[in-house]
Amino acid sequence: MSGISFEQPNIGELKALLSSTLRQFPDFPSKGILFEDILPIFKNPKTFQALITALKFQIESNFSGEARPDVIVGLDARGFLFGPTLALSLGAAFVPVRKQGKVPGEVVEALFEKEYGKDVFVMQADAITPGQKVIIVDDIIATGGSAKAAGELVTKLGGTILEYAFLLELDFLKGRDKLTAPVYTLLSGQPEKLKF
Amino acid sequence: MSGISFEQPNIGELKALLSSTLRQFPDFPSKGILFEDILPIFKNPKTFQALITALKFQIESNFSGEARPDVIVGLDARGFLFGPTLALSLGAAFVPVRKQGKVPGEVVEALFEKEYGKDVFVMQADAITPGQKVIIVDDIIATGGSAKAAGELVTKLGGTILEYAFLLELDFLKGRDKLTAPVYTLLSGQPEKLKF
Repeated sequence: MSGISFEQPNIGELKALLSSTLRQFPDFPSKGILFEDILPIFKNPKTFQALITALKFQIESNFSGEARPDVIVGLDARGFLFGPTLALSLGAAFVPVRKQGKVPGEVVEALFEKEYGKDVFVMQADAITPGQKVIIVDDIIATGGSAKAAGELVTKLGGTILEYAFLLELDFLKGRDKLTAPVYTLLSGQPEKLKF
Repeated sequence: MSGISFEQPNIGELKALLSSTLRQFPDFPSKGILFEDILPIFKNPKTFQALITALKFQIESNFSGEARPDVIVGLDARGFLFGPTLALSLGAAFVPVRKQGKVPGEVVEALFEKEYGKDVFVMQADAITPGQKVIIVDDIIATGGSAKAAGELVTKLGGTILEYAFLLELDFLKGRDKLTAPVYTLLSGQPEKLKF
């Protein structure tokens, strides 16, 4: 790297590469849902690196110096695919949000609504210390229920939520309206529900 | 990095750091199980980096040049915590093994025995191409049932399994005897079942 200029990644180019790598599957997992498949990103180290570079750049641009995040929280299980790599690239901790019964020791819990009934998210009680600055990541924000529950866990442990960061957003579900911290979406999402 | 000598990581030191970072929880998730909690590794970028460095060094030492892995396969969900980062550090693809119903498109399936009944693992049918060299990773090998099922998925797609790599092993369960490729365990495991 040159000492003269800091080479800024071409975020537009990285986003275009990532968008073209996603695959869409209509009616998965159920009728009326256009499923966005992020797995091809991880099949190629170039696209995976593009994802990490783009997210890291956004975070470092908005939260630098004293404001930088201490912890990246990722949601089970697709948030684990890139959250730990992102955390390591930022020099931050990675803390998972998991389903009840999956982590040992003392935990905090938060209920969230699923399509069919409720579920419980947990986080280890010592995973975040009061005052730590946290960014919560997941692949897609739909109704926002699981992200909201993850935020409740962070808040219960005294953490401060800097931001929620997603790859994609289902705009028409207005999930971001449920969240109490800024929401960043890397790629443009699905503005409308599928017509049938 | 110096052009004169390649600095070899001190693997013994990294292993000692990682071992001291693990936490043990007796009787979780059920009586008689001593649960090894790997999550503290990810709470500190230094220990997470130590994990990646140690696994990368082992893989690059054993599979270099033409023999290097094309794909790292990780098991849902703890294999996702370090598998993608490891893959990126090796310049390899990352492919997840997931539970049935979690991935869209055409899949291959493999049954595996759980403590209470059977479950089905799936992998996208185009995730691995015939002839690709694969390393399968997970946090812990216990009975080996899930690792064996993951191996079946790789073989069904024509991949060649170079190795299974785990952080820990429950030696007394002899899970490695179920597997048809070499097994590497980074840290020493639990040689005996807990006494009660």
